[in-house]
Amino acid sequence: MPSAPIQYGELPSVPLGAEFANRRALHTAGAHRPLQAGIDFAPGQPAASVILSGVYPDDDQGDMVVCTGQGGLEPGTSRAIADQRLVLGNAALIRNRNSGVPVRLFRKIGGVFRYDGLYAVDEYFRERYASDGFLRCRYSLRALNHSTPWVTRDERGGPIRVEQTVLRIVRDTAVTRQVKRLYDFTCQLCRVVLPTPVAPYAEAAHIRPLGRPHFGRDALDNVLCLCPNDHVLFDWGAITVLPETLTITGEAVLEGRPLLTVPAHHLDLLNFDYHHEAIFVPIVDRGDR
Amino acid sequence: MPSAPIQYGELPSVPLGAEFANRRALHTAGAHRPLQAGIDFAPGQPAASVILSGVYPDDDQGDMVVCTGQGGLEPGTSRAIADQRLVLGNAALIRNRNSGVPVRLFRKIGGVFRYDGLYAVDEYFRERYASDGFLRCRYSLRALNHSTPWVTRDERGGPIRVEQTVLRIVRDTAVTRQVKRLYDFTCQLCRVVLPTPVAPYAEAAHIRPLGRPHFGRDALDNVLCLCPNDHVLFDWGAITVLPETLTITGEAVLEGRPLLTVPAHHLDLLNFDYHHEAIFVPIVDRGDR
Repeated sequence: MPSAPIQYGELPSVPLGAEFANRRALHTAGAHRPLQAGIDFAPGQPAASVILSGVYPDDDQGDMVVCTGQGGLEPGTSRAIADQRLVLGNAALIRNRNSGVPVRLFRKIGGVFRYDGLYAVDEYFRERYASDGFLRCRYSLRALNHSTPWVTRDERGGPIRVEQTVLRIVRDTAVTRQVKRLYDFTCQLCRVVLPTPVAPYAEAAHIRPLGRPHFGRDALDNVLCLCPNDHVLFDWGAITVLPETLTITGEAVLEGRPLLTVPAHHLDLLNFDYHHEAIFVPIVDRGDR
Repeated sequence: MPSAPIQYGELPSVPLGAEFANRRALHTAGAHRPLQAGIDFAPGQPAASVILSGVYPDDDQGDMVVCTGQGGLEPGTSRAIADQRLVLGNAALIRNRNSGVPVRLFRKIGGVFRYDGLYAVDEYFRERYASDGFLRCRYSLRALNHSTPWVTRDERGGPIRVEQTVLRIVRDTAVTRQVKRLYDFTCQLCRVVLPTPVAPYAEAAHIRPLGRPHFGRDALDNVLCLCPNDHVLFDWGAITVLPETLTITGEAVLEGRPLLTVPAHHLDLLNFDYHHEAIFVPIVDRGDR
């Protein structure tokens, strides 16, 4: 079905608020090519558009949306029969997060599909639905400021794509300063200390992330002192710490090694449970790389 | 002279625009304690305030200021006789950059000292003045938005300090995507590849930084593919690459190792000259840690 080439960003023919009567019309306009899937992407590339339909009201706050990935359904029905895996469109949305490329967001409202602008993919996590017990891939989307339009680049020489910046937010609070002091800036996973000219450098990583939809606490029992490399791997679900043994899993070099801890650092092990369930991606669930 | 305890952030007794007749008045108010030095700091802590005087007009753009560190002068005169070193107040301003703690900025205007608000320290670099041939420590400061006041914390239990966020900006442009593809996400310094669940992760580092005051170019001959750890060390001047030999220097483990390069990646060696001069801090110049 997606025969036309994929197009990223704003489309001249699709202004904000444009309405489409059905999926075929979206396909024909090149606005969202697949006729069934809710995520339009090309192999190995970020997603270009997402259709939001049937989300819980809590998940759609207008400028902030939490959407669900694809897959895990019984063929021909909307009944979940398996966990969603980090493959196809679900993996593509991670590439949006990593690269800063936004998606066009369409909302299904009263039977028609309305274009609601470009959204950045800020976060990825996993959530097990209590209703059926299966895991979903979940993404936090954020509406971009439309006064600074994002322009796509035509591979044949159209307008140049506007520069993206991907921000890695490194918080500095009383708690994050405290954990770095406790470990003297030593990474609790790989034990590295990064020496910069005036002081060692480390980052504080929240085990259960702060803010919607995770609601982790900015407390000493929810932070680790990590080097930037392991902070990326931990936040993006490549590695986790098993609460039973406080050992590391998910990555070849660190596999089975103990977390570095000092007696003064009390950790709330429930935060590791949360990280294991919502953030960590087990190796068997890792799809097309 | 700095006998009163150091105070960070806005002071209730010093509103925006407040004027002080002389340095003694600044000292008495606790607004800037030293009577001669232009940087007020406590040992091992960030700076609390900076006095801007006699800067080149180009260096003061109002909300964006480039200021110069202290030291290197002949005693009792304003004549430079040595390079400035990364010690005392000069090292303290690096701690502001690393932690996000802002400084109070005072401008000397018409003989009086005016409080112009809180500024974040965004960048540190070194600059050799053509006029005398000596190196200066230089800092880019940025005015904070005064609609979201920054509150200091009284160690004896006053108001809590507002959370800071330190942003590590990771740019995503055609050039940065290209360099990561060229090296298949391998760090050109330490050779690590960080495997996240859908794709390896690397960052593109500009050798000569973009924007004021460096004016480096976003071009393939000015970027390296680095892991986040080495990106921090490179940007903060702990390590550099010698243009003559393309070997690494400044850090024990990597010392003398060759930069990883591929034939398709043409590098402009003048950018390494710039990094060596302006960003890298030679080990002999590294002061109180």
